[in-house]
Amino acid sequence: MSRARSLITHHSSLITLTTDFGLEDNFVGVMKGVIAGLAPAARVIDLTHAVPPQDIAAGAFSLATAYAYFPPGTIHLAIVDPGVGTARRGIAVAAGGYYWVAPDNGLLGYAFAALAAAGRLEGQWREGMWEFGADALAVELTEPRFWLPRVSRTFHGRDVFAPVAAQLARGVPLRALGPLTRRVQALALPSPAPIAGGWQGIVLHVDRFGNLISNLDAATLAGRAWSVEVGGWRIPALSETYAAIDDLGALIGSAGYLEIAARNGSAAARLGLAAGAPVVVREG
Amino acid sequence: MSRARSLITHHSSLITLTTDFGLEDNFVGVMKGVIAGLAPAARVIDLTHAVPPQDIAAGAFSLATAYAYFPPGTIHLAIVDPGVGTARRGIAVAAGGYYWVAPDNGLLGYAFAALAAAGRLEGQWREGMWEFGADALAVELTEPRFWLPRVSRTFHGRDVFAPVAAQLARGVPLRALGPLTRRVQALALPSPAPIAGGWQGIVLHVDRFGNLISNLDAATLAGRAWSVEVGGWRIPALSETYAAIDDLGALIGSAGYLEIAARNGSAAARLGLAAGAPVVVREG
Amino acid sequence: MSRARSLITHHSSLITLTTDFGLEDNFVGVMKGVIAGLAPAARVIDLTHAVPPQDIAAGAFSLATAYAYFPPGTIHLAIVDPGVGTARRGIAVAAGGYYWVAPDNGLLGYAFAALAAAGRLEGQWREGMWEFGADALAVELTEPRFWLPRVSRTFHGRDVFAPVAAQLARGVPLRALGPLTRRVQALALPSPAPIAGGWQGIVLHVDRFGNLISNLDAATLAGRAWSVEVGGWRIPALSETYAAIDDLGALIGSAGYLEIAARNGSAAARLGLAAGAPVVVREG
Repeated sequence: MSRARSLITHHSSLITLTTDFGLEDNFVGVMKGVIAGLAPAARVIDLTHAVPPQDIAAGAFSLATAYAYFPPGTIHLAIVDPGVGTARRGIAVAAGGYYWVAPDNGLLGYAFAALAAAGRLEGQWREGMWEFGADALAVELTEPRFWLPRVSRTFHGRDVFAPVAAQLARGVPLRALGPLTRRVQALALPSPAPIAGGWQGIVLHVDRFGNLISNLDAATLAGRAWSVEVGGWRIPALSETYAAIDDLGALIGSAGYLEIAARNGSAAARLGLAAGAPVVVREG
Repeated sequence: MSRARSLITHHSSLITLTTDFGLEDNFVGVMKGVIAGLAPAARVIDLTHAVPPQDIAAGAFSLATAYAYFPPGTIHLAIVDPGVGTARRGIAVAAGGYYWVAPDNGLLGYAFAALAAAGRLEGQWREGMWEFGADALAVELTEPRFWLPRVSRTFHGRDVFAPVAAQLARGVPLRALGPLTRRVQALALPSPAPIAGGWQGIVLHVDRFGNLISNLDAATLAGRAWSVEVGGWRIPALSETYAAIDDLGALIGSAGYLEIAARNGSAAARLGLAAGAPVVVREG
Repeated sequence: MSRARSLITHHSSLITLTTDFGLEDNFVGVMKGVIAGLAPAARVIDLTHAVPPQDIAAGAFSLATAYAYFPPGTIHLAIVDPGVGTARRGIAVAAGGYYWVAPDNGLLGYAFAALAAAGRLEGQWREGMWEFGADALAVELTEPRFWLPRVSRTFHGRDVFAPVAAQLARGVPLRALGPLTRRVQALALPSPAPIAGGWQGIVLHVDRFGNLISNLDAATLAGRAWSVEVGGWRIPALSETYAAIDDLGALIGSAGYLEIAARNGSAAARLGLAAGAPVVVREG
């Protein structure tokens, strides 16, 4: 039964961090100091801090392609927060076997969509928000006793979210953190559009190697042969490995999406493309 | 009594790292290896390794705005060390409830000033150095038995400072590390200068978002309304949040200093300003 | 006896990571999640993730200059893997008091050469490969039960190598991971060439400070006085510290190699040189 399966049964003191704070400043270190003070046994793993400033979709992509590789009960803490200090809510969620802590601005949307697609989360879109089913618990963060004593208007990662993640790591129950909420902001992963003989997608992410990762997923493409059109190029067939690409190629990457790659170089630089660029696949 | 309050009473095996070593090389990893070998139970948190090469003031700023978010007894290890291999001293200090390990080149100055301003450290400036009062202990690092067996002339972070921090994490008493010293180099945080109707300050730091963080602190500005002049612009009033800024604005940032920020962009790029640029505030 | 000395006698749950994955994406975080799931007690230290994409020699250099600063039994996991998904083997090795896990593409070569030079590893070059002696054990990674259930063709760091390192950290014996192998790919560190009155070497690595680190090692240069020729400049004598350099200088750096450094700046930028550039030393 999905409810029994998905509600948190494991407790973990492992926290992941996904932010747009960069590593140039001490923001991330300070958050870890706050966590170490409140939950000395907690362990923190950085997913990435190189989300482009205020790019909620990029943060959502990083979470969605990483969360499942962590043990059950892991606390995924994510902060890309252009609305910090305004009336936007903070939330904590138990869903899909994990805890999630973030500003309520859509950042968790791709991960929830991935959990739902994997049959690990019930719920539905309603009026532009994600409405949880019976297998998740979500609360609005309203209880200052679980935060730092002084809360700035500009750094809730330090003052609110890191403390809340630390409290969960210490074993504070989710329900103590604030009132239950059933609907949260959730960015929707752009779906590929059906076209004659294929699908039109877009580039979701450019990775460090310059690979262009699209929203065309392995399930959509499974079982048939495809050519790819991107940046004025036509790639006649998918490759299986990076090494099999002679010049410019396409393959299903490690996150389960079609990606465009260049031999010993950056496909993004080669094609002059970035996130948002169209990618078309056609059968045969 | 301040002495009883401030002398280290907690022991911790938490070490923070602040350096200009970057993450392109293995310097930081090697230091962590040395620490892991000498103090297997120690935990290390990176504050930042992106201090600009040899920029002692930038390192001092990072320490001063971060240290207080760590639990008592934390060992703050900082290395920005243009004089490595020369006669400059290495020091270890117990002050303000923390341990501090660094080259004696001023790097700890801003943090000591912040501790003193918070009433957590006695002492005074004398002949360009910081002279400790009765509530701190400082030693010069002279005991090679606490270092690596072979000490290079170019990487004391690895050969001297990381080992010393590890020894403190293991519980070696500070006094064992070398002879007591009462005065150390300490960079002085530039103070805002009073001007007609206001204050003239400077940009101390540009963060990853391009926010310009000044030395005009919240205490100086509290209780009155200010306009800000920077880079040829006039900002008529302070904002409370980043989201409340339409174009270019100013607010008290998370470190307690006035900062200049741009809506969805970099104020530094917008204004063409960097650390050292003047910032003026005027009442009303 | 060297066999008794060098075969792993310590078990450690410390894992180092050296990759070309960068920190812009979540690749490294995901690997750490996999390790945390399989070996909760394992600790991970990053050596660097800034190896230039697919630059096996740069990864080899980072390993070779760092490994010895870790406690015995440390598991050195390194992934620079242009051949991922092809028939190239994965290997795990116990050698020199450490474990090593990597694709079999030469990445461990410089470290093995350093161990051999230090008398901590027996073996020889044969037909372009490194053939182990009696004091090392190496296996080919062929046992999928120690990997993730689903193995991609593009990210063996996550699916094969991180799991294998985690298994070693958990205490799984090396021999369980696959059949023994005696010869592995091993990149050879380019040797300085003798010339009239001196040696010709090359720049192996440019560090974050812009120092040019050559393959001219301290042992080769010991006991005599040298001038250095690099990028059209002649440096009449070696310095002992960075601070002793007036403009452009040369000294034995922390990794034991001759390096070229500039006073308060980047020698690489100053000279317009990068890895591969020639460096000549002449006696007197």
